Order: sequence, then structure tokens, then C-alpha cells
Amino acid sequence: MLVNGKPGVKLSIRDRGLLYGDGVFRTIRAIRGKAQHWTLHYLKLRNDCSALGIACPDAGQLSAELDYLLTQHHEGVVKLVVTRGQGNRGYAPQFDAEITHFWDISPLPDYPADLATHGIRAKLCQLRLGRQPRLAGIKHLNRLENVLAAAECNDTRVLDPEIAEGLMQDTDGNVIEGTRSNLFVVSGSKLITPELSHSGVAGVQRDRVIEWSEQNNMPVEIRNIGMDEVKQADELFVVNSVIGLWPIRELEQSRWNNFPVATQILQAWSNETEI
Amino acid sequence: MLVNGKPGVKLSIRDRGLLYGDGVFRTIRAIRGKAQHWTLHYLKLRNDCSALGIACPDAGQLSAELDYLLTQHHEGVVKLVVTRGQGNRGYAPQFDAEITHFWDISPLPDYPADLATHGIRAKLCQLRLGRQPRLAGIKHLNRLENVLAAAECNDTRVLDPEIAEGLMQDTDGNVIEGTRSNLFVVSGSKLITPELSHSGVAGVQRDRVIEWSEQNNMPVEIRNIGMDEVKQADELFVVNSVIGLWPIRELEQSRWNNFPVATQILQAWSNETEI
Repeated sequence: MLVNGKPGVKLSIRDRGLLYGDGVFRTIRAIRGKAQHWTLHYLKLRNDCSALGIACPDAGQLSAELDYLLTQHHEGVVKLVVTRGQGNRGYAPQFDAEITHFWDISPLPDYPADLATHGIRAKLCQLRLGRQPRLAGIKHLNRLENVLAAAECNDTRVLDPEIAEGLMQDTDGNVIEGTRSNLFVVSGSKLITPELSHSGVAGVQRDRVIEWSEQNNMPVEIRNIGMDEVKQADELFVVNSVIGLWPIRELEQSRWNNFPVATQILQAWSNETEI
Repeated sequence: MLVNGKPGVKLSIRDRGLLYGDGVFRTIRAIRGKAQHWTLHYLKLRNDCSALGIACPDAGQLSAELDYLLTQHHEGVVKLVVTRGQGNRGYAPQFDAEITHFWDISPLPDYPADLATHGIRAKLCQLRLGRQPRLAGIKHLNRLENVLAAAECNDTRVLDPEIAEGLMQDTDGNVIEGTRSNLFVVSGSKLITPELSHSGVAGVQRDRVIEWSEQNNMPVEIRNIGMDEVKQADELFVVNSVIGLWPIRELEQSRWNNFPVATQILQAWSNETEI
């Protein structure tokens, strides 16, 4: 645990991250003393900071802090949060305020290995995401929609046969993402992932699937997708940096048994020399 | 400053208020050792907690803490925040988690007195509010839209002739509220305030204006309002618990010079025996 570069576990109650959710974050899997896809995460962090007008901490500084953290904890879920720091009372940001950043690390979740091979049960959440183009795609700290959607899923949802993920539509009925993951749909020879220009978070693993697809002559269509198309898919899978990739074997009344594309990607990823 | 009932200025970096904006708050003006409209604020807090499934602290406990705070600081802007506390990693709330609550107090802002009598300059913000019925009306900690809208207004916006408030529309073009205030429109003998079922925060002072209007045979219409209707209004004013009531004398190209209804309300409020 590092707060503004120093060991610590607490933050001021005047921090705008707490008062307004005025900040961004990354969730990174660390194994064998290494943070997976750190460079990709840093680029996302920098873009997200820029979208909110927050000065992003320097890559060298963050890398050094991450190295320090990983000498103490060789594996876990690493969380990095950057907020706009403190400032005067009120919503208006001060442009010269010193930003806050902190790291936290938690144990890796103990997911059953067969979730990746046999697929998960998923449900469709009742909660629908609002459409806000100014915040869409950004991994910011305003995550009440995700909290409410996750609350709809089973508490013990990581355990098969429980619900492992909930899919969310936006208020227009477009399927956007999972509560904590990005969604891909396989339809014939096409891979499709939802357009995230009005809602959702564009994660690092989503980019990695898109990159894989380009290298494997299976270009991804990025566009709006409705529930009908999702139900009729040949395959569905969700991705994020902690779970990796999970095929969906059950979504409401629909069932899938084979996941050839998901399996190909998992295979390619496991062969990959870690960057 | 009180954190969970004890003097303190810091909170855990694992608090869900910080990680997800998973909480609610109140902003209260205290003068002469008294928190104005505390009962109304507590009822709002309880409703907002309930809407998010957060256990609201007991009224007696909060009142005692507020009394303690006000013996030390006789006046100021009091902020009360209630979050879902800590819990396991991940969005899903734990239903048995202990909630967090804390108090902060800041100096009363030094607004020129003539803002209430002569009116303010306001602008129309570019940022449009997303529509999310599950969160509409609630004073929750996901306030990035307000931050981005406030950033559009002038930094020194409290000083006439600067911009003192920005009005926000939703993505459908309905005028919803100010960046930190509720809006009222006077049209002939009618008082109108925006419907807040899809966006916005329903504040205590909004309720007080509605109550005044019922007692003065000028019932408030609560409905969608477009910019055309706002520009053609006989009077416009904004309210919140810190500023009280400010008439708008200038909004983009429109001008107003007389504020008879706003003046009546201000007069009634100043005569009121404080509850």
C-alpha cells in the first residue's frame, strides 16, 4: 500500500476522489512479481486522466513504485487510483491542485479453473447504463451503476453453478458490457464487441482481443448490439485483467457448449511472451 | 472533523466511497451554532441511503455528533458523507459491511450580498447530464458530471460580473438544474421546476420552495422544461442550502431585471422561525 509514494493506507476525507469520484483507476493482475500488461494499463491511465483534465503521474515514477510494491507482494490484484487531489470546497476543479495517487494490492481471487474452459453462467442485469458520451470508455471512479448491477448478481457468484457475471444494457437497449468485464460476440466468422462511445469502460483486455483478431484475420466489428443478436451468437465471452477470458455457457434461457474462438484466444494468450 | 464518530481527517483507501463513489452526502449551512434545516437534510439522507441499500446512521447519533461539531465551529458549510464502508474487493456490496460516515466543516463562502437581490449571471453548460432513473434525484458521490460542468464556468465565478452558476440540460435537451443548485422558472402565475426522475439532485431547498408555493396558492408544476421556455420565463432562480436563493439576471443572451416571486420567497424565508 502506497499513498502518494509513501507507505500508507489512508487518505484525506477532503480528497475529491472520495467527495466526487473525481479520479480514475486501473486493476492489474500481478503474478511472479510482474504486473501483467503494465504498459497497456499505463497508456489507458494516461488517456483517462487526460479525458478528465487530471495530470497523470509520470510513467517512470509509477513503474518504480510498482516495482517496490511487487518486491513485497509477488502476486495479487494491484489497484492504482489517481484522483484530482484536494482543492477548494465545491465541484469546480483547481487547475493547480496536486493530484493524489495510491496503490493497493489484494489476494488473487480463487476462481475455479474450469470457468475458462467450460464457461460461466451469466445473467442479464435489470439495471441499464445511462448514456454519457463525456464519460464513456473511461475507467473513472463514478461506479455506482456497476455496484447496483453487481448487487443483482449472486453474492457467491464466483462459484459454479452461481452467476459469475452480469451483462448490462444501456437505456436504449444496447448490450454494453459485463459488470466488470468487456463482452465479445462471435457470429459466423465475425467477432463483434459493443461500441463504447456512450457507456461502458474500454478495458485493456478488450484491446488485446481486438489486436489478436486483427492478427488472425478475424477483424472485430465495433458497433451497437442488441440482446437478440447476443442470444443468437455462436459464442460469447467476457474479458478483464483479473479473470482473463471467460466464455459464457449460459445466459438466461440460452446455452452454449463449444467455444472455439475463445479457446484459440486463450491458447494464443497462454503462449504469449509477456510484455 | 469526525470520522465514524471520532475526531479524524482520514479514511481508508479501501473505502467504497473512494473506490466507487458508493455513498451519499449532504451539504448544510450552519450559522450561530445551528445547522439549518437539519431535519429536512436527515430525511433526505435517509431516503438516499435507502435508494442505494445503505444502512443510514441513526438520527440521534448524527444529531449528537452535529451538536459536538457545532460547539467547536459556530458557523460554516457542514458536509456529512455516508458510504457503504469497506468490504471485499469488487463492485458487489456486502450486505453486512459496516458503513462509514464522516463530517467536515469549511468556512462559509464570502458571496456578495447583492447576488440575492440583484441576481447572478449564469451560463448554459455544454455538458449534458446522462439519464439514469436509478440514480436520479439522489445526492450520491458520483459527481463527475457536476465537476465537468463546473469546470466550464469561470474559476472566479462567485464574483460579479463573473459567472456564478451554470445550468445543465440532459442529453434529451431538458433543462435539469444548476451545477450545484435546483432551478425554478416563473411563468405568469405559475412556478415550474424540472422533473428529476431521470437526472439531477432533488435538494432540500427545492422542497422548501415547493412547500412555500403550496402555502401561497402558487402550486409548482414539476415537469420537463426546454431552453425556449427557460429563456421566455418571467423570472428564473436557483436554490441550494449554501447560497439560499439567487435570482438569475443574465443567462446567455437573455436578461431579467425584476424578481418579484424570488423576492417574496426570500422575504418569507428570512421571516421564518428556523426549524
